[in-house]
Amino acid sequence: MISTKLITIGDELLIGQVVDTNSAWIGQHLNEIGISINKIVSIKDNEADILKELDDPKMDIILVTGGLGPTNDDITKTTVAKFFNTELVFDQKYYNDLEVFLDLMGLKMNHLNKDQAMVPKGCNIIPNTKGTAPGMHLIKGKQHFFFMPGVPMEMKNMMSSHILGYLKEQFDLQAVYHQTVRTTGVPESELAIELKEWEDSLSDNIALAYLPNYEGVRLRMSCYASDKETIDNINTQVGYLKKKYPQFVYGDGDQSLVEEVSNLLKGRKETLSTSESCTGGYIGHQLTTIPGASEFYKGGIIAYDNEVKISELSVAASHLFEHGAVSKQVVLQMARGIREKLDTNYAIATSGIAGPSGGSKEKPVGTVWIAVASKTRVVARCFQFGQGRERIVRKATITALNILRTEFLK
Amino acid sequence: MISTKLITIGDELLIGQVVDTNSAWIGQHLNEIGISINKIVSIKDNEADILKELDDPKMDIILVTGGLGPTNDDITKTTVAKFFNTELVFDQKYYNDLEVFLDLMGLKMNHLNKDQAMVPKGCNIIPNTKGTAPGMHLIKGKQHFFFMPGVPMEMKNMMSSHILGYLKEQFDLQAVYHQTVRTTGVPESELAIELKEWEDSLSDNIALAYLPNYEGVRLRMSCYASDKETIDNINTQVGYLKKKYPQFVYGDGDQSLVEEVSNLLKGRKETLSTSESCTGGYIGHQLTTIPGASEFYKGGIIAYDNEVKISELSVAASHLFEHGAVSKQVVLQMARGIREKLDTNYAIATSGIAGPSGGSKEKPVGTVWIAVASKTRVVARCFQFGQGRERIVRKATITALNILRTEFLK
Repeated sequence: MISTKLITIGDELLIGQVVDTNSAWIGQHLNEIGISINKIVSIKDNEADILKELDDPKMDIILVTGGLGPTNDDITKTTVAKFFNTELVFDQKYYNDLEVFLDLMGLKMNHLNKDQAMVPKGCNIIPNTKGTAPGMHLIKGKQHFFFMPGVPMEMKNMMSSHILGYLKEQFDLQAVYHQTVRTTGVPESELAIELKEWEDSLSDNIALAYLPNYEGVRLRMSCYASDKETIDNINTQVGYLKKKYPQFVYGDGDQSLVEEVSNLLKGRKETLSTSESCTGGYIGHQLTTIPGASEFYKGGIIAYDNEVKISELSVAASHLFEHGAVSKQVVLQMARGIREKLDTNYAIATSGIAGPSGGSKEKPVGTVWIAVASKTRVVARCFQFGQGRERIVRKATITALNILRTEFLK
Repeated sequence: MISTKLITIGDELLIGQVVDTNSAWIGQHLNEIGISINKIVSIKDNEADILKELDDPKMDIILVTGGLGPTNDDITKTTVAKFFNTELVFDQKYYNDLEVFLDLMGLKMNHLNKDQAMVPKGCNIIPNTKGTAPGMHLIKGKQHFFFMPGVPMEMKNMMSSHILGYLKEQFDLQAVYHQTVRTTGVPESELAIELKEWEDSLSDNIALAYLPNYEGVRLRMSCYASDKETIDNINTQVGYLKKKYPQFVYGDGDQSLVEEVSNLLKGRKETLSTSESCTGGYIGHQLTTIPGASEFYKGGIIAYDNEVKISELSVAASHLFEHGAVSKQVVLQMARGIREKLDTNYAIATSGIAGPSGGSKEKPVGTVWIAVASKTRVVARCFQFGQGRERIVRKATITALNILRTEFLK
């Protein structure tokens, strides 16, 4: 097993000024070629800390990002020279390339850029086609060290053009195969109980992980990419889960629920409209994140105020008075009203209490009525999504989309 | 100097399935109370690795996130017990609280949830009001250990409600005072040129940082919290910038633009409606993230399809035919149409090309027309927001809200 460490250097990471997206990108791309990172360490631009983290003889591969810029706070390069017991030397070839690069950018060489052509003696330079700092590859015994800038575009280019290919050639790698089944509408612990028997029957070659987020729980199955038999087995399991639990398994891979719903509507050449009260436009927003949404989404009404529900969606004032805006009667009419008004095949409606105020004993914060209408049918269901305004809106949106999806199964 | 380490646990972080946003949030919030993280380490759900990272006697504070879920791959809790040489015991009080929490969510206790009430003997439980896993605080000699779930909402709640306050009491911190001026509508480099003279005149005791995000650029001024004179100076600077640049300085502190606009509308007792094409409901969503939005936001129409623009907003078919949906004529009528229809004081309308397809030479992807109507005035402006569907929608939303805000200045 190859052991790998990623060191990210930069004060801005430790005081939270920058979210570290590089690590996830590097982790994912290494994983695809069969290298699993054992440890990610973020440290400051501080010589002692950098030296300490570089000195890790158990690691076969050490990747480092950050601290290679031209300003004074970037000390990675001098620290690297110190660690490898060598000096910085001027690299004429890199200097020439840098001149060409700067010229292309309409810039002139200055003394800060010139210093960038100084590299530790004996290193292999990794070209940087997106910026001015050189990448560096050094070998110590059996250990490989790679140093890259922290700028995501520059790092990604060095990884894709050089480092990933080099590692594949250098090591005998066991790539990993992942497949993900996406579920929604069932909490993690209930899902685990529901799937216990299935989980126990899984082959030992399959590693299973539950990955929850607000949209639902993803089930990730993994095995070695060389193990064709287990890959077939995983794909069979995906099919089994989809068939057995169509109510809450909505897809696989990277596909989100709104993508799945959009694809189904496009495939059926059918259209959708929305009338939103508590979700305030979030369902419309989610649908229109899909490129080409105009193929299936005509639009909708954000009926936040009761007057708008009456004047635009033909909700009866008597229903609002008798049952309140958060009621079956009102949400059913909202769905019917918008579907007829915009003449779509389907419509979604929501009405609920997102809080923090506005709740009552009968209808506490988190109560949401959701309706879905088609030409022949209208269904409405009541949910309790707990606390948290943003969370309630997101849960209501996901749930509404899933109800629409399950209507297609009928 | 207090030394602090953050350990984030979870295979998903190392294989890049999840971008670690928790670390930046924790780093930022610790920094605000005068604690600087020395090191962030991400490791797998693996007992040996966790034990090794916990065993770091140089650190005064060790914060740990992740691996506290109810499923088999979450092993942090048993590992904690092992590290502290103790056992897991059942906590009746936490169990009772959990029952109440699950009940509120409309869920029943199951055996996996029940296991969540098992905690290392002698730990102080940090309540979780957003989820089912308990947080834990343990002390070993002079070292403080805090264990939190990896779910951002749960972690943030524990930090804000318990841990940050506890650390402030426990340690003698040299707190840092930060004040932030929020701007929008001016790129970072232009802002830096505009403010150069002001920046040069700033006292050396004030550290200035430019923090850009999609909403605009925040200017953060910092000094030691004990330096009352400089704090006064910073507050004077905030007032100066607000007065001098009302067109692009919209607020200070944590207040977002949508909060500022909401407060202005509430203060004026005026109402707003929206008609959105390219933003697809995102403006409505942003407005309704504000608790009590119904005070000022009546609702709107998502006019994604041209038919809807004609039938619901009285846009002339001839205008659509002659000038296209992304035009001054159409967006002006969309704003007028919705304002009259919902009888509000103000209305916002958007029409643009969010891409990736649909652009032309005259109107490339990123072209967005925005209009704001009041009872006496309608203004429309055209913007070019570049590439990226999500980014264009967000930029259009922020820009529309800022145009409305500047209308209030007139």
